[in-house]
Amino acid sequence: MRIAIPRELQPGENRVPVTPDVAKKLVRMGAELLVEASMGVGAGFTDAEYTEAGATIVADRKELFSSADLLLRLNKPSVDEIELMQRGCIHISYLDPFNERELIDAFKAAGVTSISMEMIPRTTRSQKMDALSSQANLAGYVMVMKAANHLPRIFPMMMTPAGTLKPANVFVIGAGVAGLQAIATAKRLGAKVTAFDTRPVVAEQVQSLGAKFLEIDLGETGETAGGYAKELTPEQVEIQRQAQKDIIAKSDVVITTAQVFGRKPPVLVTQDMIEGMQPGSVIVDMAAETGGNVEGSRPGDVVEWCGVTIIGTGNWASEVARDASQMYSSNLFNLVEDNWCEEKKAFEVNFEDDILPGCIITHDGEVTNETIKNIMEGEAQS
Amino acid sequence: MRIAIPRELQPGENRVPVTPDVAKKLVRMGAELLVEASMGVGAGFTDAEYTEAGATIVADRKELFSSADLLLRLNKPSVDEIELMQRGCIHISYLDPFNERELIDAFKAAGVTSISMEMIPRTTRSQKMDALSSQANLAGYVMVMKAANHLPRIFPMMMTPAGTLKPANVFVIGAGVAGLQAIATAKRLGAKVTAFDTRPVVAEQVQSLGAKFLEIDLGETGETAGGYAKELTPEQVEIQRQAQKDIIAKSDVVITTAQVFGRKPPVLVTQDMIEGMQPGSVIVDMAAETGGNVEGSRPGDVVEWCGVTIIGTGNWASEVARDASQMYSSNLFNLVEDNWCEEKKAFEVNFEDDILPGCIITHDGEVTNETIKNIMEGEAQS
Repeated sequence: MRIAIPRELQPGENRVPVTPDVAKKLVRMGAELLVEASMGVGAGFTDAEYTEAGATIVADRKELFSSADLLLRLNKPSVDEIELMQRGCIHISYLDPFNERELIDAFKAAGVTSISMEMIPRTTRSQKMDALSSQANLAGYVMVMKAANHLPRIFPMMMTPAGTLKPANVFVIGAGVAGLQAIATAKRLGAKVTAFDTRPVVAEQVQSLGAKFLEIDLGETGETAGGYAKELTPEQVEIQRQAQKDIIAKSDVVITTAQVFGRKPPVLVTQDMIEGMQPGSVIVDMAAETGGNVEGSRPGDVVEWCGVTIIGTGNWASEVARDASQMYSSNLFNLVEDNWCEEKKAFEVNFEDDILPGCIITHDGEVTNETIKNIMEGEAQS
Repeated sequence: MRIAIPRELQPGENRVPVTPDVAKKLVRMGAELLVEASMGVGAGFTDAEYTEAGATIVADRKELFSSADLLLRLNKPSVDEIELMQRGCIHISYLDPFNERELIDAFKAAGVTSISMEMIPRTTRSQKMDALSSQANLAGYVMVMKAANHLPRIFPMMMTPAGTLKPANVFVIGAGVAGLQAIATAKRLGAKVTAFDTRPVVAEQVQSLGAKFLEIDLGETGETAGGYAKELTPEQVEIQRQAQKDIIAKSDVVITTAQVFGRKPPVLVTQDMIEGMQPGSVIVDMAAETGGNVEGSRPGDVVEWCGVTIIGTGNWASEVARDASQMYSSNLFNLVEDNWCEEKKAFEVNFEDDILPGCIITHDGEVTNETIKNIMEGEAQS
């Protein structure tokens, strides 16, 4: 089977989908591996390292797409790229399938099997393939480092002959994978950390990291089978906002990580709350690129409002591209290995598997994913 | 006594010499306090806060200089500013007296008493006034944060279902106040830290922070009475370089903090060592602005050499201006309080004091500091 790794073209993307280590493993499994020239540069890997791993370097990007049996990637493709692929080709990447109708239609028309890394379920067996979690984990770390670099104060308490510096107050909204890592990193640095999540079940995890869990009585809330927070009613969002207002005013750093699977994230920090903060304070909006938890955050940018710095950088994991590539690459490899047929030396699309079918969006000219199919049919009717 | 606080004009300087808290204390001691308009802006303090503390806001900078009995500042003045001051006026700030002959001559000619914050001795009683140490402490923290923000890896070890990320290797050269804080901060973040210092006496302090002390046999070394490393012979510097070469090649981050009191810092990381590092590695040169420990570092800037990022930002403490201002301001206040005559409600220049005389560079038209006088006379004769 001919596996191809094109270079990522998205601006600001330094991660690579396959590291030389993983390349070596794929070759050892019997794959013919084609790597686009300079593919690894963003994360500091040279073409020579891939050649040494047994891959062939290809300069012609179009040839790479048209000759591949399996494409391993990070970001979603363009429609033009899909049109270059062979019928029956398999394309694995992030896909954002809830929003990318046009791409899904293109995959369908091209007869390409598209597999979405976002759809890897959160089960014990699939953890090793769960790229959303591996990248969110790194994002949690990066957001704290960004905040520390913009804050005109230090995180730890410091007792000196010239007096004591108080520890920074950090408030983390959302205690999923990214939020928990942000809490852990801020605690490590010596900050005083408080966190909130609409799922009371995570209070214990927050506390076990040494942070305080903010109790807000929202009435009935819960989490999905996938471990995401269920969407709140407008009334519940308002109660949450009011309860957080005080603590936000007293915080040096606020980090928001509230996401709802497949939907626009809720706005949790409004302008009046930002205006209540001390000048020099910092807000990190993890969701800035998908709509934002913070009013006034600008995707991919750092802005100031009333002396408060609002960081909306996005693609957080790409800031630690070397480690992020190792993790993502490992996730991809585990998925490929799990579906590899040793005899045929090929990735087998098996609809009987317990993980794979839920991640397949299109196959053989059809949208096979039930959730996506239902949404698309619903839209077509309305 | 009329105390004046002019605004700092040095580019990139966000710290302020006097915070509103300290302003209040000075007023309570009986000082008449004049603050230049917008003086506190860089560190997030408003004119209103100073007015509330009992200070008067002055818009005319020249008037401020010419009417002051005592000037409290961070950075050295310009010759023009010195010429505005009254005879008998006292000026306290960093002065860099080993290099600023022109300023010393101007102070002498103007009959101003110039007090250098760098000359505060490192004794138990003067610790509370020791601004070099308080700011170096913060610099140690900032340098690690800067490195973390440029490194394409995370500092801590991370064990995940997709494999283990190894901790970053950090090498710190020089274990003075800044070096020790850099070690502590990097350890906090979970890095594997090794450190070296020419003074074997600090090995225990390094180890007590959980870092490894690199043993290099340099023959006879030592420290000055002030706690600084003694300058090495060229042969010793070469031995140190060779011994460090290996560990630098294996490090993700190298932080250099080697300074010799009153002299140019030694070059410890040479280009061939940088070329031996992995692409993506980061070097922080604390001394970039005073000559540099690292070949190719650019003062006030971040540059890349063979894929290695070299950070020479300088004025590190200004990055955490709020905390740095609190510390510096407290150092200044302790010095003023220590020399305050309650009856006269004035700063008294007492040459019988155990701390003050060593910090006075000029007084009543003379260079009174013995060390500086000897250097200047030596230069005049040669």
